[in-house]
Amino acid sequence: MITIDLARSRAALARLGCLPETDQETVAAFAAAAWSCLVEPGDAVAGRMISVFGAAEALRFAQGSDVKDLALEMGVESDDVARARSRWAPRFNDMAVDDAFARAARANVRLITPDHESWPRSLTDLGDHAPRCLWFRGNASVFSRYSAHVAIVGARAATGYGEHVASEFAAELAARGVVIVSGAAYGIDGFAHRAALAAGGTSIAVLAGGADRPYPSGHARLIDSIATKGVVCSEVPCGSAPTKWRFLQRNRVIAALADATVVVEAGWRSGSLNTAGHAAALSRPLGAVPGPVTSAASAGCHRLLREFDARCITGVDDVVELLGLDSAQTLFDSESDDTAARTNERTRVTDALSTRSARNIDDIARRSGMSNTEVQQVLGILQLEEKVRRVEGGWLVMGN
Amino acid sequence: MITIDLARSRAALARLGCLPETDQETVAAFAAAAWSCLVEPGDAVAGRMISVFGAAEALRFAQGSDVKDLALEMGVESDDVARARSRWAPRFNDMAVDDAFARAARANVRLITPDHESWPRSLTDLGDHAPRCLWFRGNASVFSRYSAHVAIVGARAATGYGEHVASEFAAELAARGVVIVSGAAYGIDGFAHRAALAAGGTSIAVLAGGADRPYPSGHARLIDSIATKGVVCSEVPCGSAPTKWRFLQRNRVIAALADATVVVEAGWRSGSLNTAGHAAALSRPLGAVPGPVTSAASAGCHRLLREFDARCITGVDDVVELLGLDSAQTLFDSESDDTAARTNERTRVTDALSTRSARNIDDIARRSGMSNTEVQQVLGILQLEEKVRRVEGGWLVMGN
Repeated sequence: MITIDLARSRAALARLGCLPETDQETVAAFAAAAWSCLVEPGDAVAGRMISVFGAAEALRFAQGSDVKDLALEMGVESDDVARARSRWAPRFNDMAVDDAFARAARANVRLITPDHESWPRSLTDLGDHAPRCLWFRGNASVFSRYSAHVAIVGARAATGYGEHVASEFAAELAARGVVIVSGAAYGIDGFAHRAALAAGGTSIAVLAGGADRPYPSGHARLIDSIATKGVVCSEVPCGSAPTKWRFLQRNRVIAALADATVVVEAGWRSGSLNTAGHAAALSRPLGAVPGPVTSAASAGCHRLLREFDARCITGVDDVVELLGLDSAQTLFDSESDDTAARTNERTRVTDALSTRSARNIDDIARRSGMSNTEVQQVLGILQLEEKVRRVEGGWLVMGN
Repeated sequence: MITIDLARSRAALARLGCLPETDQETVAAFAAAAWSCLVEPGDAVAGRMISVFGAAEALRFAQGSDVKDLALEMGVESDDVARARSRWAPRFNDMAVDDAFARAARANVRLITPDHESWPRSLTDLGDHAPRCLWFRGNASVFSRYSAHVAIVGARAATGYGEHVASEFAAELAARGVVIVSGAAYGIDGFAHRAALAAGGTSIAVLAGGADRPYPSGHARLIDSIATKGVVCSEVPCGSAPTKWRFLQRNRVIAALADATVVVEAGWRSGSLNTAGHAAALSRPLGAVPGPVTSAASAGCHRLLREFDARCITGVDDVVELLGLDSAQTLFDSESDDTAARTNERTRVTDALSTRSARNIDDIARRSGMSNTEVQQVLGILQLEEKVRRVEGGWLVMGN
């Protein structure tokens, strides 16, 4: 039995630097962490239950016995609920939750849940399959919606060509303020992360196992660097092994965290096609880098161009255009609070700038009524769009 | 003044092996040849006039004076007719037509016009811009609608990669009975032609200048080989220089002769993008071969993938699929007599075959009531589609 108790929740969370404002948020955050110990990633019955009842109530109900009423309220078959319960039952274990928190505290892993301001709302598009918390090392503000996020993924068995392209793209995008999201694997992923950091940018690595277990181990140092300048995260608790299922589910998190996904090299059956499939399923812009038709490492990319209607990406400008497609779509779809928020913040920052006299961050923050961090993030986006430029002594807005 | 006279027409045509059945066809064929001496390729006013009045009448009217009535009957502005006349007037010269026929006879160049059974009806899709005759060396049956035609085109400044891909594709397609259409230029064109011939297949070279003037001259021997095993053709009369305009117009003939066009390598502003543009304008399937994004010689292909919605072609199977798209479309559009004819002939040949006992061409021809040549051509298509196979002693149809 997993029990939820305010005092225990607050203490456990505080050790991970997670300090929700209200009692309800505290209990919800702890329950979300407990759920991550209880279910495998992408468990839609759990997701539905949490959506309907909230994480804490759902956890109580999950361990109760009134399957029929539950199923009715959730709008699912009672068989599904019964089956879900029987797969969760072996993990109804308070010790496992305590253990996850203890391991996290030891490894300097922190917890973020949907109530936190830096929580990546882009995950919401995963619906019932969305993660309910992320365990992470690093700086949560990198998740922020004020930066553009691009997933650069691809084959472990990359060629020199793919490594070159991944590095070039990641470096140039990172230099333009884009956060590079990838999976920390050998090959394309590693080159993308490394180039982003080398360019002075930030990066997010999404791991299939616990955030305390660098995988692959040969990338332990790279993963440490990512945690220093960006974020290393996982939806499974510390100590979890990176299983095959978790790799596949991890890919959906990469696709969901990114505003656009670019596959640089991929064999005909590469795992990165799975990430691409998730991006397509989420209606997120998907790009693929072509390569020689004589190279097996590009066969998957060509397949994406042919079968998935991926955009043909030949340079960083194409990626920026890909991001633009997204904004346009989202603006028209427009249930997106994020987009509206972004647009407002951009207007406020632009209003606070002059075309002639450079203003520094402090000045812009005061004029716009926003925090310094927010201003910096918004300036990054505006710079990417070539709407502002950095000069001696501060920033200028471009004239029309 | 260009005059049309039955006896003169018949004599001139006979020297080029062109023997129309009726007097009307004879006069029309000679008039079409005269028109090719009179106008530059793609002259839509001439095309319209010929469509409305027939080549012979149109030629008489073109040299007359009643602009207004003509324009009215043609449904165009009388200014357009007046302007067209003034650009044709300097060439109203019987000597030039005689000269074209004489040069053709000397160079063993023949003439084909729309009344001939081997005339490529695919050119009709060019509407008023269609050539009204072709001057050619070689075997006119290569134009036949019973074979699939694929244009393989690309940059003169090809890389080893492009040359390799062009050769592979052309050889494999030619071996499967596809006629390779191209422009005989250095680079991709040359490799495509050469590989098609080396594989024992046939090829069509469309020249921008006269069919008696091999261009580029460094390809004179290659062009001779194409004429031996296939066709070298041009819509401009013998002796004509390959001007820039004629190159651009030549590209529309390549696109129109082909059931599908594949661009193998092309720079950002390559002339082969012009061919691709014509293919797209004709709603013919268009494919582009991707290459390294680091190669300038593939930039035009990537542009086609991005901007023209070209299909990504990575192998010969993709080209066959591209051809399939066309058939599907044409069947649904279905005003195409050609397609219906093809389907009928295929059914007749298939009906004449057995799944067990091999039958030779003579036998199949007798059973189907078709000529040996027709049977061979249809078998080529069916073999390409893997519906029949060649065995010891003849052909078998595949079981279902």
